[in-house]
Amino acid sequence: MKPLSELGELGLLAELERRGLASGLDAEGVVLGDGLVATKDLLVEGVHFRREWTSWRDLGYKAAAVNLSDLAALGAEPLGLLVGLGLPRDTDETAVVELYEGLAEGGAPVVGGDLTAADELVISVTALGRSERVPGRAGAVPGDLLIVTGELGAAAAGLYTLQHGLAGFDDLVERHRRPPLRLEEGRRLSRSAHALVDLSDGLIADARRIADRSSCRLVIDVDRVPIAPGVEAVAEAAGGDAVELAAGAGDDYELLVTAPADRAGDVEAAATAAGVTLSRLGRAEAGAGIVFRTEGGGTLDVAGYEHE
Amino acid sequence: MKPLSELGELGLLAELERRGLASGLDAEGVVLGDGLVATKDLLVEGVHFRREWTSWRDLGYKAAAVNLSDLAALGAEPLGLLVGLGLPRDTDETAVVELYEGLAEGGAPVVGGDLTAADELVISVTALGRSERVPGRAGAVPGDLLIVTGELGAAAAGLYTLQHGLAGFDDLVERHRRPPLRLEEGRRLSRSAHALVDLSDGLIADARRIADRSSCRLVIDVDRVPIAPGVEAVAEAAGGDAVELAAGAGDDYELLVTAPADRAGDVEAAATAAGVTLSRLGRAEAGAGIVFRTEGGGTLDVAGYEHE
Repeated sequence: MKPLSELGELGLLAELERRGLASGLDAEGVVLGDGLVATKDLLVEGVHFRREWTSWRDLGYKAAAVNLSDLAALGAEPLGLLVGLGLPRDTDETAVVELYEGLAEGGAPVVGGDLTAADELVISVTALGRSERVPGRAGAVPGDLLIVTGELGAAAAGLYTLQHGLAGFDDLVERHRRPPLRLEEGRRLSRSAHALVDLSDGLIADARRIADRSSCRLVIDVDRVPIAPGVEAVAEAAGGDAVELAAGAGDDYELLVTAPADRAGDVEAAATAAGVTLSRLGRAEAGAGIVFRTEGGGTLDVAGYEHE
Repeated sequence: MKPLSELGELGLLAELERRGLASGLDAEGVVLGDGLVATKDLLVEGVHFRREWTSWRDLGYKAAAVNLSDLAALGAEPLGLLVGLGLPRDTDETAVVELYEGLAEGGAPVVGGDLTAADELVISVTALGRSERVPGRAGAVPGDLLIVTGELGAAAAGLYTLQHGLAGFDDLVERHRRPPLRLEEGRRLSRSAHALVDLSDGLIADARRIADRSSCRLVIDVDRVPIAPGVEAVAEAAGGDAVELAAGAGDDYELLVTAPADRAGDVEAAATAAGVTLSRLGRAEAGAGIVFRTEGGGTLDVAGYEHE
């Protein structure tokens, strides 16, 4: 049997599902009936965050935000958060209060949870919400438009500037520390969407999940990938390509939608009402996988991205 | 500001509640309306379990069981578990499959969650359920009978035999590894109970929570504390008292109930129907705190017990 480091997170999830021991581990959340939905994300020190780059308050906000982003993808209104916190014994009270202040900034109350000692800092958040309609990942059909909210690449570029000590990219760092909350957009988009996910692992990985679950191909026009300001400069400093950075990297927490072409007007009106820009990235076709198409009509090979 | 090690878990929870940053952190779970309830418990290697004493399967079972015990105290029927798992990178697939097999033995399906790398093993489980009536901790009134399911002390005594290398106590070790599931009992008892909790931190600590929240005193007859077979021998080996061990130690996961005397028949019928023994421990009186009363009418001083 393979160790986790070799099998990978997704390989292990697939194996657990195959054996009937779990379901929905890589889904945004679970739908419980009566419109009730729940999500769960575990943040571990050294894997998902580094204490030297993250204030306690930012960490609290982020732990709430990644779960609220899952609720947004479920088209849900938040009811509350359950917070499980594993804290090193030398953590002081001020730090914990700041962390909870950050959690509260997400706008959903902490209604329960658990607090315990641990060697490394661990935050496990469950967000509970209510949704009228959950489009999910499996509903895309050939002919659908592929649409994304906001702009991409800022969070990953911001993290890169922290890792490499590049100065002058405060907006990008801020985006890494403070992912957007697209809850209102999610609720509005969920009414018309065939498929709806949040971009936690990046456009490439998350679009591929829609394609796989919907058994269709998603074609993305390279020129239409909305690249956040500053990402090009960071990509250049890194010796890479801005589109690859924006499409390959995670943690943008924007929403990716497919919708039938005749509902595109509704989708765009929903975005306008929620005050967010939308980009038409491309469309769904018969086939499998995802394809990036260049202006000349060629295709671009792009690699996926998976959290450890 | 004090570090966590000095302030303690409960002190920190009180501070967070005082500031309005959280609620229900030390409750069994949260009631979401429409009868939906959710619980969350975080198990951390080295704090809640030791890998050398715990198989992967037992660990999975225990992670499910401690949350299902919270559902039992809420009088709930389980709907499913969300499992957040932080795994050391060298963990092999067989181990994870065994852990999920253990989780499944609790009888509630794993319907979602998250899997990530971590330096130390962390399991965060959220149990979702549905309840017709949640008695809670605050409903005990003077005159209520105080009743407990099953027998106490076996889990702590079993752990002691592991810690001190005592042989011949397999039943106690089994109880430490495999806490009981009192879900059916919880649903039946919740219909008549004024207060209902599960014994995760021990009779003393959990009874004190009912007394505090209900603003009454709980009087426990020392002679009526049901001590599990084998606990007396371990207490003797440890140079301690069997009642103190049974009442002071945690992890029994039995249910502690207060009910009006005129419903005692219903409570006992509910227990009989669920196939579990009940002990009448004492009663609620006007006053505060908990008191252990000896046969001669004296009182016994007992110390609480708090997980790190």
